[in-house]
Amino acid sequence: MAKPVRIGLLGRGTVGGAFAELLAERADAVEAATGRRPELAGVLTRDDGDFGQILERSELLVELIGGTDPARGYVLDALRAGRPVVTANKQLLAQHGEELFAVAREAGVQLRFEAAVAGAIPIVRAIQESFGVTEIDKVFGIVNGTTNFILTEMAASGAAYEDALARAQELGYAEADPSEDVNGADAAAKMAILARLAFHTPVTLEQVPFEGIEAVQPDDLAYAKELGLSLKLLGVAERRDGGISVRVFPCFLYGGHPLAPVSGPFNAVMVEAPAITEVTMSGPGAGGVETASAVLGDVLSILAGDAPVHEARQELPLVADVSSSFYLHLEVADKPGVLARIAQVLGESEISVKSVVQRGIGDDARLVMVVHECLESRFAAALEEIGRLDDLRSAPRAIRVIEEEFV
Amino acid sequence: MAKPVRIGLLGRGTVGGAFAELLAERADAVEAATGRRPELAGVLTRDDGDFGQILERSELLVELIGGTDPARGYVLDALRAGRPVVTANKQLLAQHGEELFAVAREAGVQLRFEAAVAGAIPIVRAIQESFGVTEIDKVFGIVNGTTNFILTEMAASGAAYEDALARAQELGYAEADPSEDVNGADAAAKMAILARLAFHTPVTLEQVPFEGIEAVQPDDLAYAKELGLSLKLLGVAERRDGGISVRVFPCFLYGGHPLAPVSGPFNAVMVEAPAITEVTMSGPGAGGVETASAVLGDVLSILAGDAPVHEARQELPLVADVSSSFYLHLEVADKPGVLARIAQVLGESEISVKSVVQRGIGDDARLVMVVHECLESRFAAALEEIGRLDDLRSAPRAIRVIEEEFV
Repeated sequence: MAKPVRIGLLGRGTVGGAFAELLAERADAVEAATGRRPELAGVLTRDDGDFGQILERSELLVELIGGTDPARGYVLDALRAGRPVVTANKQLLAQHGEELFAVAREAGVQLRFEAAVAGAIPIVRAIQESFGVTEIDKVFGIVNGTTNFILTEMAASGAAYEDALARAQELGYAEADPSEDVNGADAAAKMAILARLAFHTPVTLEQVPFEGIEAVQPDDLAYAKELGLSLKLLGVAERRDGGISVRVFPCFLYGGHPLAPVSGPFNAVMVEAPAITEVTMSGPGAGGVETASAVLGDVLSILAGDAPVHEARQELPLVADVSSSFYLHLEVADKPGVLARIAQVLGESEISVKSVVQRGIGDDARLVMVVHECLESRFAAALEEIGRLDDLRSAPRAIRVIEEEFV
Repeated sequence: MAKPVRIGLLGRGTVGGAFAELLAERADAVEAATGRRPELAGVLTRDDGDFGQILERSELLVELIGGTDPARGYVLDALRAGRPVVTANKQLLAQHGEELFAVAREAGVQLRFEAAVAGAIPIVRAIQESFGVTEIDKVFGIVNGTTNFILTEMAASGAAYEDALARAQELGYAEADPSEDVNGADAAAKMAILARLAFHTPVTLEQVPFEGIEAVQPDDLAYAKELGLSLKLLGVAERRDGGISVRVFPCFLYGGHPLAPVSGPFNAVMVEAPAITEVTMSGPGAGGVETASAVLGDVLSILAGDAPVHEARQELPLVADVSSSFYLHLEVADKPGVLARIAQVLGESEISVKSVVQRGIGDDARLVMVVHECLESRFAAALEEIGRLDDLRSAPRAIRVIEEEFV
């Protein structure tokens, strides 16, 4: 058996705890992908553990304490000791990024931080690696889930800012002290990181002006709706006049804008460049397990090194007959009893109808319906039976439907 | 000066030509990121070049011939000769993936193929690396731009399938022989690749049943619209009943579905897993330069190795005063001339109004407008002047607007 890979974990808060769990849960998968089984070499919490000992025992360090102090010292020590580091710490990166990158480069070890921006959305990897030599014009989007939840609530229910915030706190989308989120500072740190990666120029937090959403009034949202606008807290980093502009501000978008439908605590980031037109990535922007998942992806990349294609580790059977919902289009004789006969066939096949549209055309009628999910083989048999009915004017047409209705 | 890195290019069609251009254009950026300047060691076309010689002279091979023969032989030879390979060849991967992966592993060299699925969207990297040990439940989406363009056209204009196809061909979104795209075979190859990566189980093209869009009637789209549905050609790979199901079929989606607004030749892929909820990535699915850009991202990853954070290579100034469009909310006395005075201030500042909503409340009125883009400093000055007008009942409120109206 290969030697396990020992991972030192700094911090056991929401994300740290979720990471420890996820690492245990996915240890088999990591071993299958990399040949080495991960195990925790130690966990440093506020009350327990010794950093020096944990570093000594670890091959790789995961920093999930947050804040710049003592995280900065720990990460620098680890990099200098030749340990690759994975961190979710946006403040650390936004304030001390260049220092950390320089030390990592000097030590020849990796520093990865996907989880610092936009949770489970792999935007850091995309900008650094996929678009690493792309001439990016603009990176912008919704990088704070708390404010997006609050704005979504205010727009949907007409709630006042304070009430929407209270609701976000109830649901765990906002912290007891939400200031960093609602005043735009959190988003500014994330945009400093993204701008640094996109434009290959040093950008630090104090260079990013930010405005928050505390002053947004419900009637701004109501009037804006009449103008076809929806409000988002946007982070924007773009080339302008030979330089760059990096800012965070509340902003109205027209309905067709790709970011307009992004609702609730979700994040979404768009990257624009001539060579890629525009690529949009959206998903949950926070949450313990989602952030932990981004951390684990970074850990995997460090362990897997140059072997991104993992060996097939199982033989899963391909299932032939699955359940689907269907749209069904029938041209039938417009006379009494036709719908009843068709409904009878469906009923006997235990296929239930979700919605129907009927329209007469001369002596014929069109019957269009959506049926709820059923085994495709069962639906095919019913369709054949319907096709044999005398009242049919042409072969029935069926197209699958995804029933899920999103908000 | 560091030794240049010599790249062998197989194929000089649309993507091959675009890649050669992009590589030359971004050579400085590649050198800045990796320390090595890329140059073409040779180009193999149908009529010109010798594969053996090009291989001999190259450190890395880019295969953009397409099809399985002779591409398969070339790629196998290159891998066995210890050359990392980047390919955009979905047929090759979908039909011979396991063989290629095994040879690459044995030779200890990288085989990358981001461009084989969904053009510029970094979905292959996300699934392999970011979500490489995530327990993925489902990967699905729109992975063929030709059919999405045709369906978008049919839905928007009521055009017949044949007319929409002709329009796609005119605009270069469909080939002269569009069969592989419209019958679903192209999407099936892409889904075989994504399923293999997501589920770590061998999946080949012949295991993926597919249906196309040739039989879709304009009135299916019209009736479906009444039911709130829009039609997409979907590729779906998911866990079902202890196995997996991988299929391609036209499918209706309800309006709120994240894939419903994806229109024209764009692609979009969703990944669902408990640890990441759902992540959606969308962008241009094809196009010479977009595909070439994905190839270049893979080349960069091979050259950059373990150093994803590139050195800051420039010092760009941060521009403070930029142009923005604004929403402006004013509570004013409801009497003649107020709007005129406000319009005068805006006019003198050369700020032009895009839209206005006015509403009376007792003796007051609310005036809500959107103004076109102007320098923020100019807008701030005008806002201050408006704030000093006697007719104002409260301080004016302004929120930025992104003017772009998408289709």
